Amino acid sequence: MKVETLQEFCVQAMLKCGMSEGPARIAAEVLVTTDAWGVYSHGTRALRQYLKRMRAGGLKAQARPHIIHEGPAFAMLDADNALAMVSACRAMEIAIAKAKSAGIGYVTVKNSCHFGAAGYYANMAENMIGMAMSNVDTNVVAPSSKKPVIGCNPLAYAVPAGKEKPVFLDIAMSTVAAGKIAAAKFAGKRIPNTWYVDDEGLPTTDPSLYPEHGALQPMAGHKGFGLAILIEVLSAVLAGAFIAIDIAALMPLAAFQERMDQMIREIRNAPRAKGADRIYLPGEIEWQRYEEQKQKGLSLPPEVIDSLNGLADDLELERLF
Amino acid sequence: MKVETLQEFCVQAMLKCGMSEGPARIAAEVLVTTDAWGVYSHGTRALRQYLKRMRAGGLKAQARPHIIHEGPAFAMLDADNALAMVSACRAMEIAIAKAKSAGIGYVTVKNSCHFGAAGYYANMAENMIGMAMSNVDTNVVAPSSKKPVIGCNPLAYAVPAGKEKPVFLDIAMSTVAAGKIAAAKFAGKRIPNTWYVDDEGLPTTDPSLYPEHGALQPMAGHKGFGLAILIEVLSAVLAGAFIAIDIAALMPLAAFQERMDQMIREIRNAPRAKGADRIYLPGEIEWQRYEEQKQKGLSLPPEVIDSLNGLADDLELERLF
Repeated sequence: MKVETLQEFCVQAMLKCGMSEGPARIAAEVLVTTDAWGVYSHGTRALRQYLKRMRAGGLKAQARPHIIHEGPAFAMLDADNALAMVSACRAMEIAIAKAKSAGIGYVTVKNSCHFGAAGYYANMAENMIGMAMSNVDTNVVAPSSKKPVIGCNPLAYAVPAGKEKPVFLDIAMSTVAAGKIAAAKFAGKRIPNTWYVDDEGLPTTDPSLYPEHGALQPMAGHKGFGLAILIEVLSAVLAGAFIAIDIAALMPLAAFQERMDQMIREIRNAPRAKGADRIYLPGEIEWQRYEEQKQKGLSLPPEVIDSLNGLADDLELERLF
Repeated sequence: MKVETLQEFCVQAMLKCGMSEGPARIAAEVLVTTDAWGVYSHGTRALRQYLKRMRAGGLKAQARPHIIHEGPAFAMLDADNALAMVSACRAMEIAIAKAKSAGIGYVTVKNSCHFGAAGYYANMAENMIGMAMSNVDTNVVAPSSKKPVIGCNPLAYAVPAGKEKPVFLDIAMSTVAAGKIAAAKFAGKRIPNTWYVDDEGLPTTDPSLYPEHGALQPMAGHKGFGLAILIEVLSAVLAGAFIAIDIAALMPLAAFQERMDQMIREIRNAPRAKGADRIYLPGEIEWQRYEEQKQKGLSLPPEVIDSLNGLADDLELERLF
């Protein structure tokens, strides 16, 4: 499946739901790039649900995200219930513009929903340091709590380099995503006791509890829990906060890029642990997959294909598969 | 030991080394507050080494930290090799001032060194969200690396509440501090296999390797490693980055405080895991210790007392103990 073909299909689906071409192209780019990184859980697979929600009136096809409040280095964006990929891109653009004039820009968004992969927005900042984060529904326990008290609140950042690809990280504050526990359950395997708790709030190695029982553990215990709270606060109101820092305001961009290249190469070429093939920088695996899938086409897993076929049927479009 | 007594002793020690009273009082406040939180590893214990370095010419007693570059929402501070507690407080003050006018302020520092507990500076922001971070010497492995490639780069944040104490977190990106491994070695106990690697870069449960062999693991594997890189980049040049976000720019402060109180109480009162006494918010234990030690006096561990006595002897001051 060529990247462009999938992108075009997504655009057509969104147009059919009443969106205009500009926003549809933006959202398609976000979702297909996410697939190209190999982050299939947050790519085009989700579009079917988003558009169901739009047709049910939960999202506005002709939404008009707008700034409701701003200052030299910050803004608050009312997403007007747009498809969140569209409002998140808008928010990041504003953060970048603020950073250009003030050095750093911070934008929060309200009246929005799940924006997919935070890493996409972080990477939009290009010659800046980009960060994107969001609070999500409560699904992670606190140390000593029995039930979830906070979301696994994703955080992404991207830092440009010179000749090297940007370093980028997109992580949730749970030890692992729920999907990993589902996979272990499916495979009949035990899980490490740092992933999940049972109904008593105690660490368990039994993935079969999922999803009816138990809850996710925060990564690194109180550390991940504490960071999840920070993201909750920075995101303030559903859904999302975006930060851009203009490197050129702080130092010559070329010097920064050179320093990044050097750091990347030093880490990549550091002595390897016994049995290890190589050391990856954050985002390196994703960029490798991206290049490969851009060239050779996307190899989408069955659940993505099913969802895209379902979307085609929903909207009476021609199936891709 | 009364908080004020220890503070006065520290001030006298710094005056004796040629510092002026203003900066000496600032640094004493940072170090004694850190002790009062119970974070003894980063409190007054370290003063002896700092002042040794100052007398050897590595730190300037009469340093003049100054802004070398700034914009509406950022600044770069040259610490002029001041005692880092002094320049870090100055950096955070600038970040706060920038945030007041621009909504967010970001300050980096150069020509400085280890600034102690990042949490102190984060808490300076009071009615703002404060963040402080620093890169430190390389001591943490990457996933698959054999030797340390990045520092355990501390990150702290503080968020004000209304009636509740600020939520605050001060963590390093290693699973645990090296001190915990030393303690396990001393106690003859095994450690979890997520704390440390051996000389082959493989996870180990044997703390006796420390400190001649092995290295710290990043918290939550690639997640902590990735965050350590972000902090490295944001701190840019040794040592430190400081961010303040003016809540009042974004929403009425009282509404924010109320929301924080509510979140804190909801989490604190959530159902507890089997056998758990209570659920702590980030910073809650530190604030409890702080109140207690402010009232009843500090109960300093032996290594702090030894260091303070050594400092007294170095400078021919009267010993406190």
